[in-house]
Amino acid sequence: MDSGEFLDILGNANRRRILQLLAERPCYVTEISDFLGVSPKAVIDHLEKLEAAGLVESRTDSKRRKYFSIARHVRLEVTVSPYEFGTKSAYPASSRLDITSCRQLSIDLEHDPEATDSSVTASEIEPDDVVSLTEALNDVEQLENELSLAQRWAQGKLTELREHLESVLDDEQSRLLADLLLALADGPSDLDALARSVGAPPAVVDELLEKLVDDGIIEEDDGTYSLVEDN
Amino acid sequence: MDSGEFLDILGNANRRRILQLLAERPCYVTEISDFLGVSPKAVIDHLEKLEAAGLVESRTDSKRRKYFSIARHVRLEVTVSPYEFGTKSAYPASSRLDITSCRQLSIDLEHDPEATDSSVTASEIEPDDVVSLTEALNDVEQLENELSLAQRWAQGKLTELREHLESVLDDEQSRLLADLLLALADGPSDLDALARSVGAPPAVVDELLEKLVDDGIIEEDDGTYSLVEDN
Repeated sequence: MDSGEFLDILGNANRRRILQLLAERPCYVTEISDFLGVSPKAVIDHLEKLEAAGLVESRTDSKRRKYFSIARHVRLEVTVSPYEFGTKSAYPASSRLDITSCRQLSIDLEHDPEATDSSVTASEIEPDDVVSLTEALNDVEQLENELSLAQRWAQGKLTELREHLESVLDDEQSRLLADLLLALADGPSDLDALARSVGAPPAVVDELLEKLVDDGIIEEDDGTYSLVEDN
Repeated sequence: MDSGEFLDILGNANRRRILQLLAERPCYVTEISDFLGVSPKAVIDHLEKLEAAGLVESRTDSKRRKYFSIARHVRLEVTVSPYEFGTKSAYPASSRLDITSCRQLSIDLEHDPEATDSSVTASEIEPDDVVSLTEALNDVEQLENELSLAQRWAQGKLTELREHLESVLDDEQSRLLADLLLALADGPSDLDALARSVGAPPAVVDELLEKLVDDGIIEEDDGTYSLVEDN
């Protein structure tokens, strides 16, 4: 599901309340309608939208009552800042994801030392040890909170560094210059690729690159630009 | 701003497109209207909502043209899973935030070794070193991506462990039992506090606690319950 579709769905208070209720327990239409204080017809409309998006599913029990429950994991992140409006939505990565490939980050779970090992899955956890499972679960919940905190920290840091960089560049085109420098931080590149990357006309980018070369911030070698080492 | 208000605002495709445009550069109404292909009146309505929420601000230039730009940082996270519908919105933490207090997480930025030190702020970074600033910025961008990845991993792991725990408990009340155990993983607690924490009647909770004591999963001492060590 793309972020826009997800935001359209979440942009309704009653749909959010339905999701909140279903995360507690599966419910049928009358229960939801009573809980929300809205007509069954309106509830059915919301459930149809949620079902179409794949967020909610239903099953019919032995008394032929149709129960609704949350069908899938989705995670959405939205960042609004003077330099960014970013939305990211994704299904959770499998637990086989190799988190150890992260360069800037390391995770160390107290009660599940193998959790950061890419090859471990839940099936390898001692199956009958309720206390260990509870402690491992508690660790991951705590990790989630710490990751949120770290992301808020990173976002603040990002703007702080960005504002600082633009003020040091001290140019009418500071914003574009900073974009160019950030593109070059990923590795050497040429004029066309850089112009595409920052979304500006090559003629404008060419002029800015020349200025950066003159200032000794980047260097050019046979049409390839790179950040100057040990500036 | 609470998450609901934020989601109401983002639940409109044109408002999202306006934020996207303003994250590129400050704009005036006619520019936005031309870019979106909607009437200036509709644009003004959206901008009013965005301004009222504090997301957008305006200033008037020397030609008396009113420019709009993004006013503030907000970060929103939404998690939908069979066990959770969670929304979190927050302003970014200050860079003075002590990320080192995280127990499960460590961050190691290549070009900014002091970034994880709680006492460092941007003002202490060598002010004229454009290349170092760019590299530090690039590191934080990469860290943000890694944190997103880690959160998706944690969310998947959480459901996996939770499903596993409930299947091991193998009880009609597995969900409530798991909630109780998780509440106890935070530390010893009594009946009233546990009932409040899981949002169930004390009589029901009392019965479940008795069952957990009988199963040797938790122990009771003078009305205080705790997980059994070394289960």
